[in-house]
Amino acid sequence: MEIFLKENERIDDLEYKGLKIIQDKSGFCFGIDSILLTNFAKNIKNNSNVIDLGTGTAIIPILLSAKTNAKKIVGVEIQQDVAEMARKSVRLNNLEDKIEIINDNILKLKNIYEGNSFDVIVMNPPYKKMNTGIINKDIKKVISRHEITASLEDFIDISYYLLKNSGELYMIHRPERLVDILSYLRLKKIEPKNIRFIFSNKNKEPKLVLIKAVKNGNLFLKVENNLYIYDENGNYTDEILKIYDKK
Amino acid sequence: MEIFLKENERIDDLEYKGLKIIQDKSGFCFGIDSILLTNFAKNIKNNSNVIDLGTGTAIIPILLSAKTNAKKIVGVEIQQDVAEMARKSVRLNNLEDKIEIINDNILKLKNIYEGNSFDVIVMNPPYKKMNTGIINKDIKKVISRHEITASLEDFIDISYYLLKNSGELYMIHRPERLVDILSYLRLKKIEPKNIRFIFSNKNKEPKLVLIKAVKNGNLFLKVENNLYIYDENGNYTDEILKIYDKK
Repeated sequence: MEIFLKENERIDDLEYKGLKIIQDKSGFCFGIDSILLTNFAKNIKNNSNVIDLGTGTAIIPILLSAKTNAKKIVGVEIQQDVAEMARKSVRLNNLEDKIEIINDNILKLKNIYEGNSFDVIVMNPPYKKMNTGIINKDIKKVISRHEITASLEDFIDISYYLLKNSGELYMIHRPERLVDILSYLRLKKIEPKNIRFIFSNKNKEPKLVLIKAVKNGNLFLKVENNLYIYDENGNYTDEILKIYDKK
Repeated sequence: MEIFLKENERIDDLEYKGLKIIQDKSGFCFGIDSILLTNFAKNIKNNSNVIDLGTGTAIIPILLSAKTNAKKIVGVEIQQDVAEMARKSVRLNNLEDKIEIINDNILKLKNIYEGNSFDVIVMNPPYKKMNTGIINKDIKKVISRHEITASLEDFIDISYYLLKNSGELYMIHRPERLVDILSYLRLKKIEPKNIRFIFSNKNKEPKLVLIKAVKNGNLFLKVENNLYIYDENGNYTDEILKIYDKK
């Protein structure tokens, strides 16, 4: 197999079942967010049709292909060079039969897919609103982090269109956006069912939050136990080691 | 001072600055919820006008009178015999100048108060929706626990009416109602600003959640660090001991 790397690209080992990923040395590299989101979504039904909105380097589809029995996983990425890297990573892992990368804005997905066509949506959307926070000079990082090309509301609107009835949405985001997320999901009838906060350690404020919501689901939220990354001694907790397959 | 107790009533010591409270031996007695909510609201501004919606035995106004420099605290209670107990507790503690008990449905408060007349609202509303959960045979307990006489939405609607611009609302509720609470607060322009989850211990799911919201506040939520009731050995945590003034 021939995979041509550009000068700015490198191959990283995912240290999980031999999987690898191509990333831009100077661009947005995957982080623990993607790992935790994939783990949160790992109990999806066999043969699910899955779509990852804003897939970046396809880290989530690649990990989901190993952790689930999804039938098909689509990754949608707006940036052309990032989408090309994602396609190369799919080939590098011999996952062309299972993963498809679409290079487009998520707002255009109505032109590509019928409504009600996916069982599961995953997303690690940009965390910051337009015009908030420090804007990075690197446009690629800006698009990954800020709601420039699509807002949180856009992500949720297209999710309602794409999801089958009772289909599931899995998201990771910042706690500061929780009211935005929960209230817009309810408004759009993708009912939040489970949330789980992620902490560096038990005495700090949460850094991230995982959210599972169900299209037309009934109204009952379960706030799950906390996910701690470090223990009292600054080591990874057992749960994190298990997620990273080190235990 | 003469305070006549009915047969079903008893005086309990609040073990805080000599305060006492009259409770119905067979009715709904105050719990840790009221203590934690009072503590959460203890930094309100001096000379605030405060109202407690669904005050029960007036536990929250009595504690707030000791923990804050509020100018006036109104407690609203729909059940006549409970409101009478509350008034007796106010007299028992010599707080008639500071605390007023109103015996009415919170829905009627528009007939009593002008809009925009309170700086702070506190509430420990019924946790359960109508027609959910086990219904207790004792009607008093049912009214305290279920949304029979006023719904969560009613509590929030009247809060918007009563609060001054930038006025603060403090609530304690169950985590399972978080989507209901956050989305309705935002809809009604009392923006959630701080939430804090309360856990029995660090590995369990949260039991309760504290919410602070501000009328016409800007959109930014802070999820605070967790409040743990017990430590690893099953003893009260230092924070709880401090709240109970035992440390």
